Amino acid sequence: MTQQMPQQMTQPMPQQSARTPTIGVFDSGFGGLTVLRALLPLIPGAHYVYVGDTARLPYGSKSRQTIARYAVESARFLHQQGADLLVIACNTASALALPEIRAALPIPVIGVIQPGTEAAQASLPGSTKASQPQVLVLATSATVQSHAYADSLRAMGIAATEKACPLLVPLAEEGWIDHPVTAEVLRIYLAEALAEAPSASTLLLGCTHYPLLKPLLQRTLQALHHPMTIIDSADATAQATASVVAALGFAAAPHDAAPVCSFYATDSVEKFQRLGSHFLGQPLPEVKLLDLGG
Amino acid sequence: MTQQMPQQMTQPMPQQSARTPTIGVFDSGFGGLTVLRALLPLIPGAHYVYVGDTARLPYGSKSRQTIARYAVESARFLHQQGADLLVIACNTASALALPEIRAALPIPVIGVIQPGTEAAQASLPGSTKASQPQVLVLATSATVQSHAYADSLRAMGIAATEKACPLLVPLAEEGWIDHPVTAEVLRIYLAEALAEAPSASTLLLGCTHYPLLKPLLQRTLQALHHPMTIIDSADATAQATASVVAALGFAAAPHDAAPVCSFYATDSVEKFQRLGSHFLGQPLPEVKLLDLGG
Repeated sequence: MTQQMPQQMTQPMPQQSARTPTIGVFDSGFGGLTVLRALLPLIPGAHYVYVGDTARLPYGSKSRQTIARYAVESARFLHQQGADLLVIACNTASALALPEIRAALPIPVIGVIQPGTEAAQASLPGSTKASQPQVLVLATSATVQSHAYADSLRAMGIAATEKACPLLVPLAEEGWIDHPVTAEVLRIYLAEALAEAPSASTLLLGCTHYPLLKPLLQRTLQALHHPMTIIDSADATAQATASVVAALGFAAAPHDAAPVCSFYATDSVEKFQRLGSHFLGQPLPEVKLLDLGG
Repeated sequence: MTQQMPQQMTQPMPQQSARTPTIGVFDSGFGGLTVLRALLPLIPGAHYVYVGDTARLPYGSKSRQTIARYAVESARFLHQQGADLLVIACNTASALALPEIRAALPIPVIGVIQPGTEAAQASLPGSTKASQPQVLVLATSATVQSHAYADSLRAMGIAATEKACPLLVPLAEEGWIDHPVTAEVLRIYLAEALAEAPSASTLLLGCTHYPLLKPLLQRTLQALHHPMTIIDSADATAQATASVVAALGFAAAPHDAAPVCSFYATDSVEKFQRLGSHFLGQPLPEVKLLDLGG
């Protein structure tokens, strides 16, 4: 999938041991920073340019046409900043606008859905194809309504149950990452979902906010006596990106090479800097205001 | 305030015992339905036209210019539908865009901030002007950041503390109106706010979603041994609207007259109908899709 070159690609492949890549990362908000967090140790020494289209979030309630237009605008900006490849670190844009973004840009574009479902597939034991759901996908209402994860898993012969968890993004944005209220909300969502999918053994986190809640999810699953393999699509997407970077022949930097990160947000840069540090796991340097109109 | 006519008003005042009014009600989403719910018994027999600009919510993260442009578009639509007066049942638009809406339309426009603060003022005992905060305002982050409520109360000589409660809207939209998780979230928010404002005796609900949580708020305040007068800006706004309708000389319908309600939403009408019934307290009839662009 991600290894396949767009037909309209015009840029030459870089030489082996040439320069390190510039990687554009796009999300409607902060959540994509969990993907960047996973990218930093995997592809050290790269130049990362991140755009959070915070002025127009959430994308979830908008039409496919509008989401595609917004995402293409951000993607074009990242290409203008010199991005050699693009990571759409946004579930909604990945679910609804990946073909439009790929058609608009002459560089490889990686979404979060396919890497997540591939990692879920790899986590399942043997070649058992159960008719009962094997994978439980937690996601926002918009992503669940798109059925992008279930469709992608079904194409692999895997039955999945999708559970909308609309409170998890606000709880993560409130900073209640390890909080009794969040634990109780997770218990309720997981109990409801597992009642529908009692045989599910893999839990796929289908929202870039959810990796922040992984420790609490693990404790909740233990308390429910239902151990599951937790697949973080941020990790899976970062791994897919590393594969693409390697396949394109970019120079590998030493493990201790410092990445260069530039951050752009379309709304309050102060809020982005403050909230973003939770998601990136480290303080953000300067965040620049980006005007995409609309 | 609301009784003052805009200078550009061109429509003639209706005769006493003339027709009943058409009242336009606008919100970025569902919350304004709590204002409509309070209007229905107060002004029976009126024609109500409601617009929820759900495709572009939340307004809270957007700039003043964008909010004003969006709100004026909806207001113009309501005027085209024959609205004799307009209720901006949206805290963000009331806080940030009321002058622009009033300048754009030749009909009276009523916001939620002023009626809410007037009701809070009326609730305070005697003429005591404490230097300690007497009013605690619960609102969304955007409304708190605008300080519209604190500024309005300060102009009345009343000290107020504003508390951002970002989880309450998602909890109300999840339908967890009477839920242990919501009770715990309320306990945490109120305990934090009352630590800052221990002498506050009036609790002003500065968000149109919060009236749904009033019973739970009352129980939480009892449990905290801190009884407060709860002011619902939905009720106060409905009362202000009734005053304007009376002042304009519209016909009063009998108490059992059935209102005629038309509903428009700019995104999924199915979701609006389903969620809206919680806020309106009764099933919604047909909801029409409205395309305002953007």
